[in-house]
Amino acid sequence: MTNNSNERVVLVRDLSGTPQPDDFRYERCAKPTLAAGQVLVETQWLSLDPYVRALLSGRHFLRQPQPGDVLPAKSVARVVDSRHAVFSTGDHIVLETGLQRFAVSNGDDAWPLHAGHVPASTALGILGMPGMTAYFGMIDVAQLKAGDTVLVSAASGPVGSMVGQIARRKGARAIGIAGGPKKCDWAVRHARFDACIDYKIESVDERLRELAPRGVDIYFDNTGGDILNTVVMGRHLAMHGRVILCGLIAQYNLKDAPRGPNLGPLMACRGKILPMVVYDYEDRREEFLRTAIPWFESGQLAYCEDIVTGLEHAAAQFCKLMRGENFGKTLVRMT
Amino acid sequence: MTNNSNERVVLVRDLSGTPQPDDFRYERCAKPTLAAGQVLVETQWLSLDPYVRALLSGRHFLRQPQPGDVLPAKSVARVVDSRHAVFSTGDHIVLETGLQRFAVSNGDDAWPLHAGHVPASTALGILGMPGMTAYFGMIDVAQLKAGDTVLVSAASGPVGSMVGQIARRKGARAIGIAGGPKKCDWAVRHARFDACIDYKIESVDERLRELAPRGVDIYFDNTGGDILNTVVMGRHLAMHGRVILCGLIAQYNLKDAPRGPNLGPLMACRGKILPMVVYDYEDRREEFLRTAIPWFESGQLAYCEDIVTGLEHAAAQFCKLMRGENFGKTLVRMT
Repeated sequence: MTNNSNERVVLVRDLSGTPQPDDFRYERCAKPTLAAGQVLVETQWLSLDPYVRALLSGRHFLRQPQPGDVLPAKSVARVVDSRHAVFSTGDHIVLETGLQRFAVSNGDDAWPLHAGHVPASTALGILGMPGMTAYFGMIDVAQLKAGDTVLVSAASGPVGSMVGQIARRKGARAIGIAGGPKKCDWAVRHARFDACIDYKIESVDERLRELAPRGVDIYFDNTGGDILNTVVMGRHLAMHGRVILCGLIAQYNLKDAPRGPNLGPLMACRGKILPMVVYDYEDRREEFLRTAIPWFESGQLAYCEDIVTGLEHAAAQFCKLMRGENFGKTLVRMT
Repeated sequence: MTNNSNERVVLVRDLSGTPQPDDFRYERCAKPTLAAGQVLVETQWLSLDPYVRALLSGRHFLRQPQPGDVLPAKSVARVVDSRHAVFSTGDHIVLETGLQRFAVSNGDDAWPLHAGHVPASTALGILGMPGMTAYFGMIDVAQLKAGDTVLVSAASGPVGSMVGQIARRKGARAIGIAGGPKKCDWAVRHARFDACIDYKIESVDERLRELAPRGVDIYFDNTGGDILNTVVMGRHLAMHGRVILCGLIAQYNLKDAPRGPNLGPLMACRGKILPMVVYDYEDRREEFLRTAIPWFESGQLAYCEDIVTGLEHAAAQFCKLMRGENFGKTLVRMT
């Protein structure tokens, strides 16, 4: 890399099915030029997130990237040059940069990296967008109460693990669902879930009958698909149960969105289906961090990260995430 | 009929598919005997309701009737003998009697027929359970606001027609969906819907794009099935739209409950799915009647009834309802 070069990952073609590494291209290009009102940043940590797959199918409410576009990604970055009123050279900020080393931004969607004795990478995971999703999804949308039984899918991921830990902190019971013994063991041993169902080898329906015979008060849905259908149609919601629609990874790789659960069983249990969209809570980030950073600093939040080093490996890492083979918050560390 | 005889309609066999008249048997039997604490009533109007079909499949949260049981039905009835503390001979009450002329009841689920200058039959329709369903579904569950666009299926039925009329009274726009020109014309001309889509000959999806290009704020779902799927998956919900799950007539005749809509589109519009179960509002009947009876008495509520006279015709009338061939609130008038 020369001083004037950049590196980035761009989309090669419209995707169909599970992403393959050659759907993306790692390339070098010129460093972007700073204009008035902008910051130039160098990324340090890049976030890989399942919602980007939905974006790539045009099935998300944010803009669909086109072939040749840099892949969208949030990052932790250092300001290396600034013509911006607020952010100065040397500041560490969190912002949308896409999967590249250098990016310019007008700073509209940027915020300072949280203070406190916490690793910077957590600003993309348990103390970032996924953590906030769990927090406001549970406190605000699901109206979590002590004594509730909470079920969450993708339990070892950054949203799911935070959902379980918030449940436990608030005096609720937490049951996770994850794929494989490694993820399930971690959820129980480290994130202190009461139990975790391995959907790859166990029947979610049968295990829920054993673990929550009176139903779950909250199902925090990070997956959609079969698990959502089982919870609703298998009548696993307790009276006045809430399904929090948060992620739909089960369908992001599919060409056509599959049918959902028959909704009839919601009548008997007065169950509600409620969406959680973290962008609606941007103005409450401080409230979240004021609460969650002390949890973290006192050693009470477990988290795991699945890190690859070097942007040239980002595409393969994203594909691994979309096959469900990641273990924890999936990140790219820049060299 | 002798003085000691009764007539009734009983279930012959477990149902499969659309009910046939010979699934039921009209028969004469002995008049029931009054015990302490009970009333003996003679029914005058009997209500036929789609939810009874769900009951007959064991797919409702109330008890499933067995072969030989009297078919469940609410009725307007006159007390002909009483050993009850509250209700006296000559009182007119509304209660669950089943499809029969004479019934005894301990009065737990009975209430006095509403006063006011209104026909008794409306206590089973627009001023009864269906009217209350519409009222609390709209005011309480859907949180109707002036300026909302409201969509309702089964628009000429007692729930749907009341939903539309409540919407209009509160300054909202009302779009109905019904089967056939007769029902649609009635909804627009008499119940003052702004428009009514004939789902038998029109594309609900296309018509909604024309009639509500910015989406509907409330979809009051009396049917489930294709219409529910079209509203959700066709992205016809406006931002913060609410789907009120109320009736599922599209699936009551089916052996297996069909899959519902993919729920992904709810994320973009922050749409909620909320159940409405009228039994939860029993203690607010007075509030409903205090509001709705004056509407009726001032001539501002349109309603239509599909009446058959004589209990021997009740089974055929119920089958007609379950084929969607009724026009308005479906009733049996006793001779």
